[in-house]
Amino acid sequence: MTSRMKINDESSRPIGVFDSGIGGLTVVKELNRLLPNEKIIYFGDTARVPYGNKSKETVIHYSLQVAYFLMKKKIKMLVIACNTASSVSLPTLKRHFHIPILGVIEPGAKSAIAASRTDNVGVIGTLGTVKSNSYKKALKKIKRSVKVYQHACPLFVHLAEDGWNKNKIAQMISDEYLKSFKGKNIDSLILGCTHYPILKQVIQNSAGKKVKLIDSGRETAKEVNRILQKKCLLNIHKKTEKNHSIFYVSDFPHKFKDVSQRFLSKELKHVHKVKL
Amino acid sequence: MTSRMKINDESSRPIGVFDSGIGGLTVVKELNRLLPNEKIIYFGDTARVPYGNKSKETVIHYSLQVAYFLMKKKIKMLVIACNTASSVSLPTLKRHFHIPILGVIEPGAKSAIAASRTDNVGVIGTLGTVKSNSYKKALKKIKRSVKVYQHACPLFVHLAEDGWNKNKIAQMISDEYLKSFKGKNIDSLILGCTHYPILKQVIQNSAGKKVKLIDSGRETAKEVNRILQKKCLLNIHKKTEKNHSIFYVSDFPHKFKDVSQRFLSKELKHVHKVKL
Repeated sequence: MTSRMKINDESSRPIGVFDSGIGGLTVVKELNRLLPNEKIIYFGDTARVPYGNKSKETVIHYSLQVAYFLMKKKIKMLVIACNTASSVSLPTLKRHFHIPILGVIEPGAKSAIAASRTDNVGVIGTLGTVKSNSYKKALKKIKRSVKVYQHACPLFVHLAEDGWNKNKIAQMISDEYLKSFKGKNIDSLILGCTHYPILKQVIQNSAGKKVKLIDSGRETAKEVNRILQKKCLLNIHKKTEKNHSIFYVSDFPHKFKDVSQRFLSKELKHVHKVKL
Repeated sequence: MTSRMKINDESSRPIGVFDSGIGGLTVVKELNRLLPNEKIIYFGDTARVPYGNKSKETVIHYSLQVAYFLMKKKIKMLVIACNTASSVSLPTLKRHFHIPILGVIEPGAKSAIAASRTDNVGVIGTLGTVKSNSYKKALKKIKRSVKVYQHACPLFVHLAEDGWNKNKIAQMISDEYLKSFKGKNIDSLILGCTHYPILKQVIQNSAGKKVKLIDSGRETAKEVNRILQKKCLLNIHKKTEKNHSIFYVSDFPHKFKDVSQRFLSKELKHVHKVKL
């Protein structure tokens, strides 16, 4: 077997995507759009969602379990499409496994800095993500002078999952949360939770037209593309019926089908329930 | 040891209270009020909350784990202060353990029937509780002619936990959910989730003055009193500093302290984290 063949072999392997639940499907949607040849093995830890209100040790323990599961599926790269797990578990996972591992925090932070002219960046996310200061740290690491304003928006996840993403109540809640950025002169706002792209319209209304919303999931998909390209791991073969993406969940929530449809913009085939 | 002494010995044992998270603290509050001598051993499965969107098998599996944990603490009675676990796991738990076991569904249903003159009863709860039809079945079992109207209010849990329980947004969300009962002539409405008593005021506003709100937790505490009395298991000794209630959680959520304060109306002492 030549070295060239070896590279091809690895490139046909799937990308592992891991989320605490189904929010990560918004990241899969972006990956599908940007990298249509790539096969995805998704794991949504729906039996233990949300991670956002769990302790650091618990989140790391769960993340390792899921990563081991995905590694057994011979993935070529791992995307942690969960802000909480990204901010808490990334260093541990990188120590344990020797494939490229990417979280959603750094790509989001990088893009926010690039988009900002005022050097005032806003971050919204779950309470866990905001309290961890992970975006703030990532932003400051890239540009020390940047001023970071954060606000937790805990109800957004539930608005997105219940399909209340465009109504008057969603708008009022969004206005209430985003009040805290008034007068801060922010011009880029990181959507620091994979559920939030579903609420993009109401968030944009509250933030005003001048603020650029940074979709961490979309930025992560771009970064995946860059990494795979650099490592000659892009899949050049098209997906087939037999060689498709596979979705695993640790439990089937009641509204799983509705929500996945809304998040992925297409019907979710090949979903399997597994016990870790 | 005489039989009399044996009874006394058992009566000094604690009552086990089990919830998927901290919502069950509203039930503990009612137990403390009605039965101040009773020592409580509480288990809140905060690492795996919520149960409401999990499958039946998962909820039964978790409930058995928690019940075994509490049984080892030598409880004299078990209260399942979680609507989802009550509706899903009660028969299995009753088969496994031979102490009195009480869920929150039946006491709530009984009280709602007693309070209704129109025989039109409303039920609000999580999606899981509503989909299980457990209140409907319990109500129909008591009185076949009763008409039951149900509506899921998934955002209420988060409003209660975030302290948005009295503001304008909470009122709007409550009005939106309770719209579905308009014209149904209901005169009693079951708060079928342990979080909902925190939102009593806005729910009452939406439902109108003529509708009696049935707090399942409060009704359950009354039923606990009746059962313990009947079985000569009421504790006649006052609680002491050394002999106090103990709270176990499977994880410490970020907002644990704030929320427990709001739910229990007093500071929570003696909280331990345990792994099941």
